[in-house]
Amino acid sequence: MNLEAAQDSSSPVRVALLGFGTVGASVARVLAARNFAGIELTHIFNRSINRKRSSEAARSVPSATLWTEDIGQILDSDIDIVIETIGGLDPIETWLTQAITSGRSVITANKQLIAYRGAALAQLAHENRVHLRFNAAVAGGVPVIPATLHGLQGDRITRLSGIVNGTCNFILSHMEAGAGYVASLRKAQAAGYAEADPTADVDGLDARAKLCILARIALHAELDPDRVATQSIAPVSAIDFQYARELGCTIRQVSRAQLGSGPDSNLVHARVAPMLVPLTSPIAWSHGTQNMVVTSGEFGGDVVFSGHGAGGNPTAVAIVSDLLAVAQNCSTVTLPTEPKAVTSEFLAPHYLRFIVDDKPGIVSAISGALARVGANIDSILQRPGYPKHHLPFVVTTEPCLTSTIAAAVSSIASMDCMLEPPLDLQMLTIEDKAED
Amino acid sequence: MNLEAAQDSSSPVRVALLGFGTVGASVARVLAARNFAGIELTHIFNRSINRKRSSEAARSVPSATLWTEDIGQILDSDIDIVIETIGGLDPIETWLTQAITSGRSVITANKQLIAYRGAALAQLAHENRVHLRFNAAVAGGVPVIPATLHGLQGDRITRLSGIVNGTCNFILSHMEAGAGYVASLRKAQAAGYAEADPTADVDGLDARAKLCILARIALHAELDPDRVATQSIAPVSAIDFQYARELGCTIRQVSRAQLGSGPDSNLVHARVAPMLVPLTSPIAWSHGTQNMVVTSGEFGGDVVFSGHGAGGNPTAVAIVSDLLAVAQNCSTVTLPTEPKAVTSEFLAPHYLRFIVDDKPGIVSAISGALARVGANIDSILQRPGYPKHHLPFVVTTEPCLTSTIAAAVSSIASMDCMLEPPLDLQMLTIEDKAED
Repeated sequence: MNLEAAQDSSSPVRVALLGFGTVGASVARVLAARNFAGIELTHIFNRSINRKRSSEAARSVPSATLWTEDIGQILDSDIDIVIETIGGLDPIETWLTQAITSGRSVITANKQLIAYRGAALAQLAHENRVHLRFNAAVAGGVPVIPATLHGLQGDRITRLSGIVNGTCNFILSHMEAGAGYVASLRKAQAAGYAEADPTADVDGLDARAKLCILARIALHAELDPDRVATQSIAPVSAIDFQYARELGCTIRQVSRAQLGSGPDSNLVHARVAPMLVPLTSPIAWSHGTQNMVVTSGEFGGDVVFSGHGAGGNPTAVAIVSDLLAVAQNCSTVTLPTEPKAVTSEFLAPHYLRFIVDDKPGIVSAISGALARVGANIDSILQRPGYPKHHLPFVVTTEPCLTSTIAAAVSSIASMDCMLEPPLDLQMLTIEDKAED
Repeated sequence: MNLEAAQDSSSPVRVALLGFGTVGASVARVLAARNFAGIELTHIFNRSINRKRSSEAARSVPSATLWTEDIGQILDSDIDIVIETIGGLDPIETWLTQAITSGRSVITANKQLIAYRGAALAQLAHENRVHLRFNAAVAGGVPVIPATLHGLQGDRITRLSGIVNGTCNFILSHMEAGAGYVASLRKAQAAGYAEADPTADVDGLDARAKLCILARIALHAELDPDRVATQSIAPVSAIDFQYARELGCTIRQVSRAQLGSGPDSNLVHARVAPMLVPLTSPIAWSHGTQNMVVTSGEFGGDVVFSGHGAGGNPTAVAIVSDLLAVAQNCSTVTLPTEPKAVTSEFLAPHYLRFIVDDKPGIVSAISGALARVGANIDSILQRPGYPKHHLPFVVTTEPCLTSTIAAAVSSIASMDCMLEPPLDLQMLTIEDKAED
C-alpha cells in the first residue's frame, strides 16, 4: 500500500497472508468475523496448501482467496499489503524485502526479523514510501508498541521491564504454586505452550529479541540482540520459590533495559534473566501465559500494560489492528534512534542460593568471599528440615554490580562443599516516581 | 496544522497553549526538557498573565513566547496547533471550534468537552482536514486511548471497566487502610487531589465523562453522558471495607460499560459506582491516584492499562505525545460509531449493608423482601462487637439485575428498624476469556 495511493483510493485493499498456522488462521478468522469494509484477503501462502485448505480453520477464508505454495505468485500479484506469520530470518527477510521494494506495505509478527533487521527494514520501507508494522512481534495482544509510539513519545522513557515470554511465565507461575521445574516444563509442553526443544524460551533468546524491539521503540536505542546477556530459568528450583516467598517475592523471567546515565550515556543496561520480584510489584501479578510490560518515564512515571501475550487470536488482534492502520494510511510518530552499546551490569540486590555439604566454616567462607569483593550481606536464610549433607541455604546482598557478585560467586563455586553451582538471581526493586 | 500542509513542511510547527495551570505549566516543562526539533511554543493564553509569567513554572517557557490574556490574539495569529488545558464547555467549545474552522489542529485534555461534544468536534475537524486529539482527557499519562485506537481496533471490544478518577481511588484506597470516609476526603483535599467541592469526583460525574469517551473509542458507541447512572462513594464507610475483606474484596469506584447483546444490541450497559472488587482482579491493584482501565475483547481477551492518571507531568506526557503525532501528521484509525441508548442494568451479585436497631424478625423481613423480587441470598455476614441498637450487617445476593435489587432495597429502606439508608453495591466478577 503506497502512502499516496491509499489516501484517496476507494478500491479495496488487497491483502496476502504468509503462513496459515495458528496465528495466520486466527488472522483469517478475525477478518471474517469483523468483516471490515474495504479489506480483502486475496492470497494465502503456505506449504502443503491442500492440507491447510481443507482444514477446519480454512472455513473462515473467503472462497475467492487464492491459496498458493509459490511465493512468487504472491510477490508478482496486485496485492497492497503482505502479512507475515511464518517467522525466522531466512527466507522471510528476502521475501519481505522484495515486497517492500515493489511497493507493498508489510505487517509482521516476526520478532527475530524485527529485532535483528527492523531498523534496516524500516529505512527501506521509508524509502519506498510503504508501511512496516510489527505490533504483534512483542507481547501478542498487549498493545505496548502502539501505546508507546502514539501515547508515550512525549516522555523520556529511561527504563523498561517486562514479562514477554509466556512460556517462561507459565512455567514459573506453575512453580510458584509448588511444582518443580521439570514437571512445570512438561506441563507447558503438554499444553502446547512450550516447544519440544524449549531452549529459545527458557534460555531467554525469544525474550531478548522482544526486549531489543521495545528498546528501539521506547528508549530509542538500537541494540545488537547478540550482545544482550541472558540467563536460563532452568536452574531455578522449587526451593527458590519458598525462599523468595520468605523475602516477600516471587520469581519471574524479567527482560529489562535501562538507559545509562552520566559517563554511561552511550550504554544501555540490558538483561533477560529469572529475577526475584516483590509480590507488590505489577511484574509479580502476571500468571500463566500473561505478558506484562512496565515503562518508566522521567515525566509520566511507570505505565503498566498486561494481557494475553501469545495465542492465535490475541496475536491476530495486533496484526488486524496494524492492518486497519495501514489500510487507512495512518503513520506513526518517528523519532531518531541511536545505536547503543550493551552492558549486562545492573546495580541490584542479589539472591544467592547454595546447595552444600554442610560443615563448620561454610558461612564464614561465603561471607568472606563476598566481603573480598565489597558486597554487603543483607540476610542469611536457612529453612529447617533439609539434610546436612545436601543443605540449601540463601544469602541476599545489598545492591551491588552484576560483575561484582559474579566474581564472588565464581570463587564460591569452586569451594569443595558446593554440591551444585550456586544460583545467582538479581532482585527487582520498585522505584516508580512520576515527577510533578 | 492542515493535513496536507504538514506533510512536506520543513518550517517549525507553531503551538499555542491555552491555560498555564498545573497541566499547562507541565506541558511547557516537558517541551523544554525534550526540545523536539520543529516544534515551537509561540503563544500562551491565561488570565492574570503577569502573575503567571513571573512564576517559577514560567522559567521553562522560551523567551520568544508571547503571553496574552486575549484569546483573539491567539486565534488571529499564525499558529498551527492549539493545546487546551483550561477545561469546561463554555467558552472553550467556541474557541476550539474557531480554531478548527480556521484550519488549526486541536489537542485537548478537556474530558467534559470531549464527552459531550467530541463527536461533533471530530466531524468538524474532519471537514476542516485538521487533527483533534484528546489522549490526556482520560487517565492522564496512561495511554489507553492511543493503545486502543492503534492496537485494539482489530478486536471487537465488548466491555470495559476501569478506575479513571484518581481522587476517588485515593480516598477509597486510603479507607482500605482503615480510615473513615470524611478523614480520607480531608486527606485528599490536603494533598491537593480533591477540590474544596469534591462533588464532581465523589459523585462520579468526572468518571462518567471519561467512561463515555472510552465507550466511543473502544465500543464505538456514542453515549449521552447525562444518561449514564452514577452512584456516589460518599456513603461507603470503614465497616464496608471490613466486610469486603471478609468476602475477598476491596471497594473501588468502577466505571464500566458493556455492549448489550441479542435483543439489547442497541443498548450499552453503563454505570459509575463504588463496587466490591475481588482482590485477585487487576482493578483492585490500583492504589492512590493510580488509574487503570481493562478492555475485554472477543478475540484478545482482557488487556490492562495502568499508571498515573492525574498530575501535571503525566498529563503533559499525553498532550506532548499528541503534539508529536499531530506535528508529524499521523492520523488515527477511524471506524464508524453508533449512537446507543444507555441502561444502568447489570446482572451482578450485590452487597447490601444495613444499619439497624436490632430486634427479632429483621433478617426474616429482609430476606422476605429479597425473596419477593426473586433475589437469592448468597451470604449473611454479621461481625461481632457492634451495639444491638446500631448494628451493621451485610447480605450478599446471587447475580440479579440492578433494578430488581433496587426494588427490594427500596422496600427494605422503609422498615422502621433501618437507622440509615441501606448501602447497595454491585460486586465485580472476573471473566477474562481470550478465545483461541
